[in-house]
Amino acid sequence: MGEFDLIDRCFAGRGGQPRTFTRLGIGDDASVHQPAAGMELVVSTDTSLAGVHWPTDLPLAVAADRAVCAALSDLAAMGAEALCCWLNVMAEDAGAVAQMGDGATAALARFDVELVGGDTTRSSCNALAVTVAGQLPAGSAMRRSGAQAGDNIWLCGCVGFHASGLKQWINDCKDGSFVEYFTGVVPMLKQGVRLREQGVQCCMDISDGLLQDATHLACASDVGMEIELSLLPDWPQLVDEIGEAQALQNAAHGGEDYALLFTAPASMRFTDACMIGRCRELPGVSLMLGGQPVSVEKGGYDHFQ
Amino acid sequence: MGEFDLIDRCFAGRGGQPRTFTRLGIGDDASVHQPAAGMELVVSTDTSLAGVHWPTDLPLAVAADRAVCAALSDLAAMGAEALCCWLNVMAEDAGAVAQMGDGATAALARFDVELVGGDTTRSSCNALAVTVAGQLPAGSAMRRSGAQAGDNIWLCGCVGFHASGLKQWINDCKDGSFVEYFTGVVPMLKQGVRLREQGVQCCMDISDGLLQDATHLACASDVGMEIELSLLPDWPQLVDEIGEAQALQNAAHGGEDYALLFTAPASMRFTDACMIGRCRELPGVSLMLGGQPVSVEKGGYDHFQ
Repeated sequence: MGEFDLIDRCFAGRGGQPRTFTRLGIGDDASVHQPAAGMELVVSTDTSLAGVHWPTDLPLAVAADRAVCAALSDLAAMGAEALCCWLNVMAEDAGAVAQMGDGATAALARFDVELVGGDTTRSSCNALAVTVAGQLPAGSAMRRSGAQAGDNIWLCGCVGFHASGLKQWINDCKDGSFVEYFTGVVPMLKQGVRLREQGVQCCMDISDGLLQDATHLACASDVGMEIELSLLPDWPQLVDEIGEAQALQNAAHGGEDYALLFTAPASMRFTDACMIGRCRELPGVSLMLGGQPVSVEKGGYDHFQ
Repeated sequence: MGEFDLIDRCFAGRGGQPRTFTRLGIGDDASVHQPAAGMELVVSTDTSLAGVHWPTDLPLAVAADRAVCAALSDLAAMGAEALCCWLNVMAEDAGAVAQMGDGATAALARFDVELVGGDTTRSSCNALAVTVAGQLPAGSAMRRSGAQAGDNIWLCGCVGFHASGLKQWINDCKDGSFVEYFTGVVPMLKQGVRLREQGVQCCMDISDGLLQDATHLACASDVGMEIELSLLPDWPQLVDEIGEAQALQNAAHGGEDYALLFTAPASMRFTDACMIGRCRELPGVSLMLGGQPVSVEKGGYDHFQ
């Protein structure tokens, strides 16, 4: 089976349903789209590599599913409705294409995101670059800037669970209590849309670790932050299962949880999120535990240090 | 220097000028865009890997420049005005990021395409996934389908020159007469827009070789084609320099020339393109030389055969 038959078998007709947004889908030199009147287009792209973003003993279909969900999480962070996806698949052999095709299109089907383009390349390392697009009413995108001193800080989803699951997986505890958080990334698409509709203006997803990402948001907004870790969702469960030191480490620096970190004026309340701190004038992000400052060793993941 | 400083130094503020099309550019979880009223968005994505899409002794800046131009060529094939780009850079080390950043942003600046997002990842192999977007009036995109029996077949640009240059490069003839066609890919953006404005409806770019790509276009349009190779632009030069057998091979199967192959009713004429054949009812693509059918050995590049 050649490249084009392989692409047909692995990708054509799979993923979410065609949408009126797409005027010309997969199979030409490019795809063609038209956002509805008054809507803006939101686009993000993410690379995932074997051995970097996932351990090489993770099944490729699971890895590809995660890669698509990680990309979709960026749309969730903006409050966009997910519409379509372009997939660049780099694969060691035809079997790897098929497995990554299965995983990626399963994730796209689950969130009804149309596959509209991409390419498939032989490579010495298995990897995917996933580009996704969504839409939202013009001017309503949630951004990293916009937090103000006095705003509350909220978290929708958990942090530290993914890192805990990854460590269990690597330590050959493949049925560990947190492994499902590592193998099954869930982009908070519905929650992101709801937050935007409720008027939230400042949001990001936690991909590089709570401390690093909170620092990005604080810098973009020109505020400081104080975050109380004991207020994190399921914090007692995390401490119970892996101990306080590891819980601190994983919560502060463990990446890829894809929870939504957002800020809102003190008057606003949210039912499906936890308030974990407050924005302040003083720059920097302080992590607290039971009201006392804590420091935890290493920073978020850095590819080139 | 860490990942984020590196990204800042290599990418921030480089590439083409900001455009009103972009409402939120690089630096947030996603970019936000709004096509002008009555316009459609055209998107394409292409992966380029060291050792697959370019020889590993090609400077990385040149390779990245080529990768961006190859992606832009897909917009040219649709007749779109190029607007913005998302870059996924996979690099062995920080030096490779810097070189690929230099090359990619130089190409973007040359064609005034805004860099609006992407990511940078450490990888065991140097590679880029380049996603580009452009716009055109709704309903006017040139497609692979739409050729009709009796239409003339036209070529804007050369074929066979890139393959000839690549062979010279590989054979250590780095100053060979065709090498500049290999190191310097030129996306036919202006020509593509002009063809669309003149009413051309069926077009594609030649990336996998004339025979393979013509076959794609013929299949998509449900026609056959007869192409006379001696009518190819600069055919005598190619034959003179590398001999007829090699010229046939490179013209039929050499990829990455990024010429535009298009069809048009017999009444239409084009000043900056060569007429190279005609569409017919009989399926299949016949290559002719001096009116006689010719066959040439291997097919276009296939990643998985």
